[in-house]
Amino acid sequence: MQLLRLGPPGCERPAVKVGDDEYVDLFDEVGDFDEAFFGRGGVDLLHDAVAQRVNDGLAFPLEGSRIGAPIGRPHQIVGIGLNYRDHAVEAGMPIPDEPIVFNKAPNSLGGPDDDVHLPPGSSKTDWEVELGIVIGARCRYLEDEQAASRAIAGYVVVNDVSERSFQLERGGQWVKGKSAETFTPCGPLLVTPDEIPDVADLSLWLDVNGVRRQTGSTATMLFGPAFLVHYLSRFMVLEPGDLISTGTPPGVGMGLHPPVFLRAGDLVELGIHGLGSQRQRVVAAP
Amino acid sequence: MQLLRLGPPGCERPAVKVGDDEYVDLFDEVGDFDEAFFGRGGVDLLHDAVAQRVNDGLAFPLEGSRIGAPIGRPHQIVGIGLNYRDHAVEAGMPIPDEPIVFNKAPNSLGGPDDDVHLPPGSSKTDWEVELGIVIGARCRYLEDEQAASRAIAGYVVVNDVSERSFQLERGGQWVKGKSAETFTPCGPLLVTPDEIPDVADLSLWLDVNGVRRQTGSTATMLFGPAFLVHYLSRFMVLEPGDLISTGTPPGVGMGLHPPVFLRAGDLVELGIHGLGSQRQRVVAAP
Repeated sequence: MQLLRLGPPGCERPAVKVGDDEYVDLFDEVGDFDEAFFGRGGVDLLHDAVAQRVNDGLAFPLEGSRIGAPIGRPHQIVGIGLNYRDHAVEAGMPIPDEPIVFNKAPNSLGGPDDDVHLPPGSSKTDWEVELGIVIGARCRYLEDEQAASRAIAGYVVVNDVSERSFQLERGGQWVKGKSAETFTPCGPLLVTPDEIPDVADLSLWLDVNGVRRQTGSTATMLFGPAFLVHYLSRFMVLEPGDLISTGTPPGVGMGLHPPVFLRAGDLVELGIHGLGSQRQRVVAAP
Repeated sequence: MQLLRLGPPGCERPAVKVGDDEYVDLFDEVGDFDEAFFGRGGVDLLHDAVAQRVNDGLAFPLEGSRIGAPIGRPHQIVGIGLNYRDHAVEAGMPIPDEPIVFNKAPNSLGGPDDDVHLPPGSSKTDWEVELGIVIGARCRYLEDEQAASRAIAGYVVVNDVSERSFQLERGGQWVKGKSAETFTPCGPLLVTPDEIPDVADLSLWLDVNGVRRQTGSTATMLFGPAFLVHYLSRFMVLEPGDLISTGTPPGVGMGLHPPVFLRAGDLVELGIHGLGSQRQRVVAAP
C-alpha cells in the first residue's frame, strides 16, 4: 500500500494512492497518519476502507493537490551518520564501528516539493538523499532483528538537508546543523514493506540544477533497516510514527572538489526507485 | 504561579499549587499543560480559573498524589552540554566557545519521584542536576535576548540522567546516552519567572544515598537562559512546551576519583532553591 497526505501545510489529509494517479481520502476513517494511527494498528486498518471507497467511486485524481510529508509530525526524527562506506570516505571521517545517531527537530519535517529555506547566517547548506524508515509499533529493547522488521511500517524518501557550518564548525553535536525548518523534506509516499522486493537493493539519486550529484544503492549501506531499529531500541524507546533517516550515499556538496553548496534559486531533485521523487526550490528563509 | 501535574503515569491532570500544600485541578479548563496550552497563552489563561476554584472551596491537599512531570510530553527536549565552567574542567573537556546542543528523546520525560531504570548493558549511569527552561511561545529566529525572555513560560528541576558508556564510548553524538526511558525526571513544579527573584542566582544540589555530590549555583553558568533560547532559535524552531535543560554544575559521578556510577537500589535526591526537589530510586529496567 502507498500512503500519502494531501492538502495545505499543517492541514494535510491522509490518503491512499490507488492505480497510477488517483487517491482515496481517509480523513474520516483515521484522522491522520500519526503516532495514534500507527500505534493502534496502522496500515492494517485501511484495507477495507480503501476497497470500499474505490467501489463507491470515491477515487479522485492526484493532479493539482499539494503533497505533504506522508506522516504527521513524529515524536522523533533520528538520523544515522556515515552509513554508506563511500560517503564516510568522502567526508574524511572514519568508517564507524557502530551506527552514529543524531536528531533532527521533528518540526523540520516538510512535504517532498516544498521550498527549502536557507537559514540566516548559513553558508554551507548541503543535500543528502536518504532512505527513511517509519516505525509502526513501540520499540523498547527489541529481542532481535526479526522483531525490528515487524515494527517497520514502511519506507519513505528523505532529503536530510544539512547546514555544514552549523553542524561541524559551531561546537559539538550535529543536531545544530540538521534541525532548521524545512530541513527534512519527506515523501511523497510511505510504501509498505510488502511492496518493496528488496530494501537492500534500492537505487537512490539526487540532482542539483539538473546535474547528477548523488548515485547510490542501499546495497552499500553499512547497517540495514532491521539492524538499525533493533540497535536504536537499546538506547531509546521508538514510538509509532517515528522517522529514522538511514544515511546518505556519496556525492554530497561538502565532498566535491571544490565543495558546492546550495544557493537561493537552486533546484534539488531526488528519489529512490519505487518510493517516488522530490523536487525542492531553494530560497532564503522568509 | 506554580504548575504541576498529578495522577498515574500517562494520565496526569494539570493543576496549580495554592498555599503551602494544596492544589486546584484544571483538567476541565485546559486539558493538559502541553504544546496547545502554552501555544494559546499558557499561564495567562489560568489566573481567573484558579481564583474561582479557590473561592469555590475546590482546593485539595497534595498529600498522597503521585506527581508527574509538570508538562506533557514536549515536541523536543534539548540539552546544553558543559555549561558550567567547573563541570567542563571535571569532564576533561575544553570550555565551549558557544553552547553545545544535544537532544534527549521526548519520551524519556518522567515525574520527579519516579524510578530511574538502568538500561540493559549499561554500566556508567550518572546524575546531573539541571535548571530546565519551559518554552512558552514559538521561537523562530528571535530578534534578541529580550524576545527570548518573553518566550520563557517558566523553570523546572531536571535530572539529566546520562549513561556515559553509551554517550561517550559508542561512536559519536551524545543522544545515545541521554535518551533511555526514565532518563529525564522533571519537576515537581513549573515555576513562572515572576516568582523567581533572580534566575542567575539559584542554588542547585544533588545527593546520592545521602552523600552530597553536587553543589552549585546558576551564577556560574556560561550561557544563561535568555541567551540560550535566543541562540537555539537560530538553529531550530522551538515550539511552545519544549524543554531545554541548561547543563550541570560540578560533581557528576564521572568526575570523581575514582568515578562513581549509579547501581540498583541507590537513592538520588536533588533540587533547586525555589523550584522544589526530586527523589528517585534506581532500579534495573523491568
